[in-house]
Amino acid sequence: MEGVDYLAGERKKAEFDVQAMKVVWAGSQHNLEVSDRISKLVGEDPAAILQLLWLNLGMNFSFQISSFIKSNHFIALFLCGWIYINVFRKDDRTMLPRKELFKQTLRKAAYAWKRIVELRLSEEEASKLRFYVDEPAYTDLHWGMFIPAIKGQGTEEQQQKWLPLAYKMQIIGCYAQTELGHGSNVQGLETTATFDPHTDEFIIHSPTLTSSKWWPGGLGKISTHAVVYARLILDGKDHGVHGFIVQLRSLEDHSPLLGITVGDVGMKFGNGAYNTMDNGVLRFDHVRIPRNQMLMRVSQVTREGKYKQSDVPRQLVYGTMVYVRQKIVADASCYLSRAVCIATRYSAVRRQFGSQNGGPETQVIDYKTQQSRLFPLLASAYAFRFVGEWLEWLYMDVTRRLRNNDFSTLPEAHACTAGLKSLTTSVTADGIEECRKLCGGHGYLCSSGLPELFAVYVPACTYEGDNVVLQLQVARFLMKTVSQLGSGKQPVGTIAYMGRIEHLMQCRCNVQKAEDWLKPDQVLEAFEARAARMSVSVARNLSKFANPEEGFAELSADLVEAAIAHCQLIVVSKFIEKVQQNIVGEGVKQQLEALCGIYYLSLLHKHQGDFLSTSYLTPKQAALANDQLRSLFTKVRILGHYLMCTPFILQALKNPRKL
Amino acid sequence: MEGVDYLAGERKKAEFDVQAMKVVWAGSQHNLEVSDRISKLVGEDPAAILQLLWLNLGMNFSFQISSFIKSNHFIALFLCGWIYINVFRKDDRTMLPRKELFKQTLRKAAYAWKRIVELRLSEEEASKLRFYVDEPAYTDLHWGMFIPAIKGQGTEEQQQKWLPLAYKMQIIGCYAQTELGHGSNVQGLETTATFDPHTDEFIIHSPTLTSSKWWPGGLGKISTHAVVYARLILDGKDHGVHGFIVQLRSLEDHSPLLGITVGDVGMKFGNGAYNTMDNGVLRFDHVRIPRNQMLMRVSQVTREGKYKQSDVPRQLVYGTMVYVRQKIVADASCYLSRAVCIATRYSAVRRQFGSQNGGPETQVIDYKTQQSRLFPLLASAYAFRFVGEWLEWLYMDVTRRLRNNDFSTLPEAHACTAGLKSLTTSVTADGIEECRKLCGGHGYLCSSGLPELFAVYVPACTYEGDNVVLQLQVARFLMKTVSQLGSGKQPVGTIAYMGRIEHLMQCRCNVQKAEDWLKPDQVLEAFEARAARMSVSVARNLSKFANPEEGFAELSADLVEAAIAHCQLIVVSKFIEKVQQNIVGEGVKQQLEALCGIYYLSLLHKHQGDFLSTSYLTPKQAALANDQLRSLFTKVRILGHYLMCTPFILQALKNPRKL
Repeated sequence: MEGVDYLAGERKKAEFDVQAMKVVWAGSQHNLEVSDRISKLVGEDPAAILQLLWLNLGMNFSFQISSFIKSNHFIALFLCGWIYINVFRKDDRTMLPRKELFKQTLRKAAYAWKRIVELRLSEEEASKLRFYVDEPAYTDLHWGMFIPAIKGQGTEEQQQKWLPLAYKMQIIGCYAQTELGHGSNVQGLETTATFDPHTDEFIIHSPTLTSSKWWPGGLGKISTHAVVYARLILDGKDHGVHGFIVQLRSLEDHSPLLGITVGDVGMKFGNGAYNTMDNGVLRFDHVRIPRNQMLMRVSQVTREGKYKQSDVPRQLVYGTMVYVRQKIVADASCYLSRAVCIATRYSAVRRQFGSQNGGPETQVIDYKTQQSRLFPLLASAYAFRFVGEWLEWLYMDVTRRLRNNDFSTLPEAHACTAGLKSLTTSVTADGIEECRKLCGGHGYLCSSGLPELFAVYVPACTYEGDNVVLQLQVARFLMKTVSQLGSGKQPVGTIAYMGRIEHLMQCRCNVQKAEDWLKPDQVLEAFEARAARMSVSVARNLSKFANPEEGFAELSADLVEAAIAHCQLIVVSKFIEKVQQNIVGEGVKQQLEALCGIYYLSLLHKHQGDFLSTSYLTPKQAALANDQLRSLFTKVRILGHYLMCTPFILQALKNPRKL
Repeated sequence: MEGVDYLAGERKKAEFDVQAMKVVWAGSQHNLEVSDRISKLVGEDPAAILQLLWLNLGMNFSFQISSFIKSNHFIALFLCGWIYINVFRKDDRTMLPRKELFKQTLRKAAYAWKRIVELRLSEEEASKLRFYVDEPAYTDLHWGMFIPAIKGQGTEEQQQKWLPLAYKMQIIGCYAQTELGHGSNVQGLETTATFDPHTDEFIIHSPTLTSSKWWPGGLGKISTHAVVYARLILDGKDHGVHGFIVQLRSLEDHSPLLGITVGDVGMKFGNGAYNTMDNGVLRFDHVRIPRNQMLMRVSQVTREGKYKQSDVPRQLVYGTMVYVRQKIVADASCYLSRAVCIATRYSAVRRQFGSQNGGPETQVIDYKTQQSRLFPLLASAYAFRFVGEWLEWLYMDVTRRLRNNDFSTLPEAHACTAGLKSLTTSVTADGIEECRKLCGGHGYLCSSGLPELFAVYVPACTYEGDNVVLQLQVARFLMKTVSQLGSGKQPVGTIAYMGRIEHLMQCRCNVQKAEDWLKPDQVLEAFEARAARMSVSVARNLSKFANPEEGFAELSADLVEAAIAHCQLIVVSKFIEKVQQNIVGEGVKQQLEALCGIYYLSLLHKHQGDFLSTSYLTPKQAALANDQLRSLFTKVRILGHYLMCTPFILQALKNPRKL
């Protein structure tokens, strides 16, 4: 401490081209450039000083001060230092009472919007800016759910009416699907939309306590409108769940409209975190809306109250799901990398025990116990990055096919994105908490950044599909695939390995020395054999049940394990594919190879029970994998790689102030 | 929902004597009675209404109101309902800004103290009362660390001077050991206490930034005194770390004394949680204290500045450590049971999917995926309860032996408590978070109680010994035991099984059908064989290193795994011992047997890699264990056991108000 910068020494040790690694991480030179530029825009926002001076001195002399600063930069900073604050500041976020926190978020969201307009940012840049502002806000739902719902489910006419209002934020919308009693089971929603042919209106109603809308972000205090999901009732007949645009609050005085009861659901986990968001509760008491506010792209209700369906393929919905989930996987990588970055830097600076003759103690990053917890998470952040990149491609592929009415790859793409959403968010949530623990007591302080990171991240395990429910969907797909083996239907994409089932059921691991575990083909076979055997084994157990659904329920915990094995195989295979590509930059490829090895070998060690119980490995071979894993820890430590986990992201996120 | 009490139906299903189970959980009829009585005292505090009326109406008419309430109870409650609040209320805790929160904690701590004095509570009752008030406060450190430090390390004279002041709270103390740069490595503390023979004083000084005291609870705002740990320097010679009583703040106006810089370390993880505590930072700038404020029971400094040691055995320190850690294990059980209780009730009420013909959906507790995550945690809460009870006995045994200068069992007792502290706190921290996830989205709301429970609990993984560092201590003990095998020295206590090493290295599992996994001897052999083989295997690998310390460092991750296997064996064996005792109450023993089975079989499934790689089990036998585990889930579900996890604790903790 005391003026010594341990990190500088560590950084010097890096034996690879850091700039080239940044490009690999960002995905392209272009991405890196945008990311870097926008992060600086947020971190060094020029309006910041002026605004705060104005706020603090209580007078508007921003122009004078502005020229003063330009002409006399250092003196200005010296004079104004104590009141210099960025509008996007985050350092006080965990200290603010809820109301102040919420008001600050409103200021940030409005200011971000202002900057986006002023600077005429592209959609890519605007989305990056929101990423760096890094604070859940009603705008996330307005832009990310309300508008896309109208675009995806509204007719041309509806889009023409509502989208311009939404784009200019003359109305602000949220997405009211989840109810107090219904989350995963969307088909079980209870809110009703009953058509009244006399007035040509729908009557939106909450018949029970459990039918109260619960959770929608932006609903509690802000939204003027919502896309509400409700059961469509026509002449007493239930046509299932459909979307409706419902106005909630007056555009004059923002008070709730007649029949609407709305409020905030209260404090949520953690300091700052999602408490910046007004997640809300909403009840309808026979609220009437015009018929043309049902989203009618796919299904329509006529003036006479008849139900009709257009020829728009319903599968389009799955395309959207694939899109949202691939974004979540990419986010997982970002969040995990931020936590790993903090924990890695801490581990390099923190010293404890091992002082020789009064010299400095050992850096905790040099302890194998620390490495064996930290480095697999570092490797996972890269793994999720690359599988996220691949999912982006998959989404485009699916979209292209859907346009040509080719739905053949949809089940596989759907299972794959569902499983990867579940896998990556679970690992990331647990991984952030592990990073917090890796910082010892200091990780418990909000100033470490980790408590808030954890609290703001964990909902990802629940939203857009509960992680266990999703793995059960994957398992269902796996069981179907197994049951169709031999039927002549060839499994494709990420499930293609099942086509080699006979080999995978019989093969034995060839590893004879630790280094054999660096051979990609060997590793892939191991993960394929494990996944295939687990699927086949649970399929066999299922076949013993007279009632398949009963068997599925009884064996669901085993099914989830089989699904996770399959998803881990996908991530491993995509990581291996990535490092086999042509990667520029001195030493970069070697680093990625080491991280890839750490990724799959730490999985193999953690799940060695699976590999051993399916008799693919011998205990000796499992021990060799563990030996190889240890050498890779040493390799990554020596090459000093660990410091290069997106520091540029971190700078802007952790410390927007830059004096 | 809507007025239907699903839990009532569930409770009726319980096929065992609930009252008898409560006694088993409490440890004795006496414990249950005290616990119940004090929880009511806190939950239904009679001063509550008066105080709040007074606060709200701004006038002191408490006597009149008091008689009014007595004579006309219902009307009074009706009239006062909206202002009825218990001083010990907790429902607003997660919503309060830090300052309000802290002030409320001060009020509670003062009021609790007042009640303890008024009601002349015994030490047992007072400690229960603090437990039910359930809020970290400076008093924890004053009573739990400051006073015991003076009692344990002070001379008779020092005790006579300081203890009466502390007992009457005329001074308030904290325990200033940890520094910004030093937690686990106490011997590396940097604060100095240099003796000045001219003035007969010690000069307490913080020579570096990293030597700042950091974390002590009660330090930030409250404490007038501290027991400060510092390096004793006599005539330039460093005699290592010793304790000193140092006054920090004026007893007149509470301002910091000359040379003292003190403050709060800032926000900590979570809403409410440890933000009720003023964990502090403290720096000394050549602060002088009289020589007689060094705690001199074990070592003394004479007027001439000579260092002397008394004949008080230094091992006494370990006795205290055993005491503190067994308390932590008992606490782990309480915290885990609270989380499991919330998650279990939620799982019984929450329904999702599986509706048949419009009937109610399936209770999520009926899903095997939910059971396989929840029931092992329920079983763990009981397991930790029983191992905690046994540790209480162990502590008394050690104390008795120490009094007779018998130090023979101390290393084993020390390793055992260190390991169990680590194991139980890690499982509990992760278990609370798992319970939170088991409540789906609703677990993310502070109103579920789980976010705060998690945030307030996790420091237990760090304080009183970092959990990884502790397991390495256990591993060191295991390696020493293995190296002494065959030397004629018989391992005792929890490590006695190592005496049968030859058998344990060779035996093979005899299980042929799933029910064989219910045989206690079979299970114990499996866990003993696994633990013994893992220890021996890593000992063999260690012997390949020329430098043993280098080997220990390189293999530390494997050593931790071996230590955990040993600790799990201890918990399993104590659980089995417990259920083999005479347990009264219809069906109680059967329930505990089922939970015991769930405990060890879920461990076996989770760590099947260990059992398989040490070749004790075949894959087939591991699969049978999993089958048996599933039947036990069903058994526990059907018998409705799951609801009886200390509801009486929960009522008081979650909902102190009872109208």
